[in-house]
Amino acid sequence: MLNKKIAILGAGPSGLAQIRAFEAARLAGKKNLPEIICYEKQADLGGMWNYTWRTGLDKNGEPVHGSMYRYLWSNGPKECLEFADYTFDEHFGRAIPSYPPRAVLKDYIMGRIDEEAVSKYIRFECPVRWVEYDKESELFTVTVMNHKTGQQETDTFDYVVVATGHFSTPNMPYFKGLENFPGRVLHAHDFRDALEFKDKDVLMIGSSYSAEDIASQCYKYGAKSITISYRSQPIGYEWPEGIEERPLVTHFEGNTAHFSDGTSKAYDGVMMCTGYLFHFPFLPDDLRLQTHNCLYPEHLYKGIVFQQNPKLIYLGMHDQYFTFNKLDLQAWYARDIMLGDIELPNAEERLADMKVWQDRHQALDGSDDQNIEFQGDYMLDLLAATDYPEFPIKKQGELFKQWLRDKDEDIMGFRERTYASTITNTMATELPKPWLEIKDDSLESFMSLDFVEVTVD
Amino acid sequence: MLNKKIAILGAGPSGLAQIRAFEAARLAGKKNLPEIICYEKQADLGGMWNYTWRTGLDKNGEPVHGSMYRYLWSNGPKECLEFADYTFDEHFGRAIPSYPPRAVLKDYIMGRIDEEAVSKYIRFECPVRWVEYDKESELFTVTVMNHKTGQQETDTFDYVVVATGHFSTPNMPYFKGLENFPGRVLHAHDFRDALEFKDKDVLMIGSSYSAEDIASQCYKYGAKSITISYRSQPIGYEWPEGIEERPLVTHFEGNTAHFSDGTSKAYDGVMMCTGYLFHFPFLPDDLRLQTHNCLYPEHLYKGIVFQQNPKLIYLGMHDQYFTFNKLDLQAWYARDIMLGDIELPNAEERLADMKVWQDRHQALDGSDDQNIEFQGDYMLDLLAATDYPEFPIKKQGELFKQWLRDKDEDIMGFRERTYASTITNTMATELPKPWLEIKDDSLESFMSLDFVEVTVD
Repeated sequence: MLNKKIAILGAGPSGLAQIRAFEAARLAGKKNLPEIICYEKQADLGGMWNYTWRTGLDKNGEPVHGSMYRYLWSNGPKECLEFADYTFDEHFGRAIPSYPPRAVLKDYIMGRIDEEAVSKYIRFECPVRWVEYDKESELFTVTVMNHKTGQQETDTFDYVVVATGHFSTPNMPYFKGLENFPGRVLHAHDFRDALEFKDKDVLMIGSSYSAEDIASQCYKYGAKSITISYRSQPIGYEWPEGIEERPLVTHFEGNTAHFSDGTSKAYDGVMMCTGYLFHFPFLPDDLRLQTHNCLYPEHLYKGIVFQQNPKLIYLGMHDQYFTFNKLDLQAWYARDIMLGDIELPNAEERLADMKVWQDRHQALDGSDDQNIEFQGDYMLDLLAATDYPEFPIKKQGELFKQWLRDKDEDIMGFRERTYASTITNTMATELPKPWLEIKDDSLESFMSLDFVEVTVD
Repeated sequence: MLNKKIAILGAGPSGLAQIRAFEAARLAGKKNLPEIICYEKQADLGGMWNYTWRTGLDKNGEPVHGSMYRYLWSNGPKECLEFADYTFDEHFGRAIPSYPPRAVLKDYIMGRIDEEAVSKYIRFECPVRWVEYDKESELFTVTVMNHKTGQQETDTFDYVVVATGHFSTPNMPYFKGLENFPGRVLHAHDFRDALEFKDKDVLMIGSSYSAEDIASQCYKYGAKSITISYRSQPIGYEWPEGIEERPLVTHFEGNTAHFSDGTSKAYDGVMMCTGYLFHFPFLPDDLRLQTHNCLYPEHLYKGIVFQQNPKLIYLGMHDQYFTFNKLDLQAWYARDIMLGDIELPNAEERLADMKVWQDRHQALDGSDDQNIEFQGDYMLDLLAATDYPEFPIKKQGELFKQWLRDKDEDIMGFRERTYASTITNTMATELPKPWLEIKDDSLESFMSLDFVEVTVD
C-alpha cells in the first residue's frame, strides 16, 4: 500500500505544530507515516512570528501575512504558554521576566523546533493558488505558485491541513469622509513602527487587543495624543494622560473626526483596529470554512475536522487565550485522525459532539473567566485522546485570569508583574525599570538587562 | 447554434473598451453577438481611475487595485488622449487647460461611457479565483468569488479577455537595514496623500514617472526635502530647491540612508517608486502571460492574442504613451477576432508577425521619439483592420514629443503649457495661476477656476 500524502498549508505556529506532530511519531518509531509537503507563502518559517517590514503585498506580489509590529512585547505572561517538554529555564538557562518582547518570545518558541528537520518538508515562497477535491479518487489537487522557480506546481493529496491563520486579512470598515482624510489611514495589520506617530494626534478605531496594545505602544514612543474610539463599550482602563476613549466615529470632515457623543477632534492619522477576516482565496466553496472569530468556530469537529469533508483539517481557527500548546494539541489530534489512530465518528456523531460544545459555547456569559475555562476544557478533551505530554492547563488558565486582573489594575505597568512557572515553579525576574522606559526591543538588548530576582517574603 | 460566451476580467479602461467594442457592434446592427460577462473586483467601474483611500487589501480582503493618489494631475496633455468621437469640447462645452487633475480627466473618460448600458454586463465585487482551459471542450472554466453573496460562481466561456492591468502589484525591493527603519516605508502603490509628508524628509527610490510625479506632489504639499535615488541615471530635471537626486541607496542604518556615492542623509519616510509586477494569481501556467513592462510584450500576437492559446486575449499589457484610444484599438481588434471578422492566422504566421514587431522593438534606440513613433505605428496597424473611427495618431504622437520637451524645460511648470486639440483644433485655456499654487484638485474646484484664453499672436 502506498503511503498517504498530506499537504500542510502554511508553516506558521499551526503548520509547524502539524509537522512536529508527525516528526514526534516518527521519532517514537511509528512506521508507514504519510508523506508530507508543507507549502509556505513566506521565505522563512514562523508565520505571524516572522516579522516583516513589508506591508500590503510582499516581494512576490502576495498579500503580506504578518501583522506584527516593532516594539511589540508579549501582552500575556510567558508562563501561560510554556511548554511542558521545553521550559523557559531550559531555553534561556536562567530566569527572565514574565512579559518578554517579540524577539525574545520568538527565540523561545522556535528554540524547540529542529529547523533542519522541519524545513525539509517545507516549500518556501509557494503560496497556494487553488485546491480541489475529487469525490471519485478521494484526493485533493493542490496547485501552488513556486516563486523561486516562477512556475506553478500541482500535486495530489489524501489530506489537506489548512494552517494559514486568521489574523492576516484586515477587516477595514468605511466611515464617511475617510476618502478625504489628509493623512495616513491604515489598518493595524499594516502598522509597523510607532515612531511614525511621534508627536502626532492619532485616532484608533476599535476596542480589542490591537487597539489597547498599539495605543500603549504609540504612547510609549511619543505620540502627542491617542483617542480610542469604541463601538459599544470603552475598554475602560485607567489610561494615562494622553490616551482617551470616545464613542464611535460618525464621520470625518477633512482631518476632523466627529464622534457619536457630538465631540470632535483633528487627527494626523487614523488606524483601524477592527479585526480580521477569515479569508481562504485558494479554497472553493465546498472546502471553505465560513465562520467568525470565536472560541468554537462552526463546522469543525473537535475544532479541527471540517464537517463537510473530514479529510480537510483546519488548525488554529479559534480565537485564543491559550496559544502554541493549544495548536499542538490540535495538531496531535489531527495527526492521530489522519493516521487512523483515532477513529473518526460518522457525520451524525460528529454533529452531536459539536452540538454539545456549541451549546456550552452559546451559554458562556462573555466573562474572561468562563471563556478561559471553556478553552481549557476544550484542550483537556484533546489532550486526553493523544500522547501529547501532559501540562498544567488549569493552572495556566488561572494565570490567564490573574493576568487580566493585573492588566485591569495597571495597563501601562502590568508588564512589570512576575509569575511563577506552572511547569518548573521558577519565579520570573523583574524588569530593572518600567516597561515604558525600555525602548529597545531586540533580543540582545533585552537579554543584557539586569533582571531583578524577586524576593519572596 | 448557441451564441459564444466571453468572460472579460476587469472593468477598468481595458475591460470597458472591450464591452464598448461589442456594444458598438450591437448598435451597428450586428447579429448573433456573444454573451458577455465582465467580472470586476471593485464595487464600481473605472479600474485604476476608481480612486480609493484604501491601501493594501480592500474591504473584501482582496489586494487593492488602485495606485492613484489624491492631488494627482494628468502628467501628459489631455490632447494626447482625446477621442475622435467624443471630444473635450463636446464633454465640457468649453475649452479647459491641457493638464487637468484626476477627477476632471476621469469625468471626461467616463463621460462617453453609457454606465447603464455597460453595467448590465458587469458583476461587481467578483474577483476571479481560478481559470482553467479544457482542450477537449475548448472551453474556459472561470471561478469567481462573489463577495456580495459570499458564494463563488463558476461558468464556462469560449473566450477569456484578461483586462486586469499591470500597474497594481508593486515591485518592492529590499535594501539592507529597511527592517529597522524607524518610520514609514511604502511603495508608490500605497501612496495616497502628500500631506502625510508635510515638513518631512522623504526618500524616493526609483527614477521613472512615479518618482518624478510623487516627488513633485510632495514638494507642492510642503515636504521639507525630497531625495530621489536612482539606479543608473538621474532623471535630470532642473529640480527646485528641496528636491535633489542621488545615486542608489546601498543600505540603511536607523533612519539614515547611505548612498553609493558615499553620502548619507536621515529621513522620516521611504517610498519605493520601483514599478509593478505582472501578476495573474488566477491563471495557471499554461494561460499565464510572463513578460515585462515594455512597448511590445512577448507572446502576444498583435499585442493582444496569447500565442499559446489564441482564445485568450490580453488587453493593455503594453507600457504606454498612448492610453485609452490604444486600449480601444486593441479591444476593437480583439472583438473582430472573436467574432471571426478578422481571421486569425495560424501559429506560425502569428509568430512571424510578432517577430517583425519584436525585431523593430529590439532595434529602438531607447529615445522617447522613437518609442512614440513605434507605438503609433502599432496603433495604425490595428486601426487599419477595424471600423474604429479614425483619429490623428501621428499628430498626437508629435504632441507627446512636445510634452516631453516641455517637461524637460520646466518640470514644475509644464502643466501650465497649452496645446491645440488634434481633433477640433480648439486651443486649451491657461491655468489662472501656477500649478504649484492650485492645491484643491476636485472637479468642482478646478472647473470653477477662471481659465485664461490663450491669445494667438
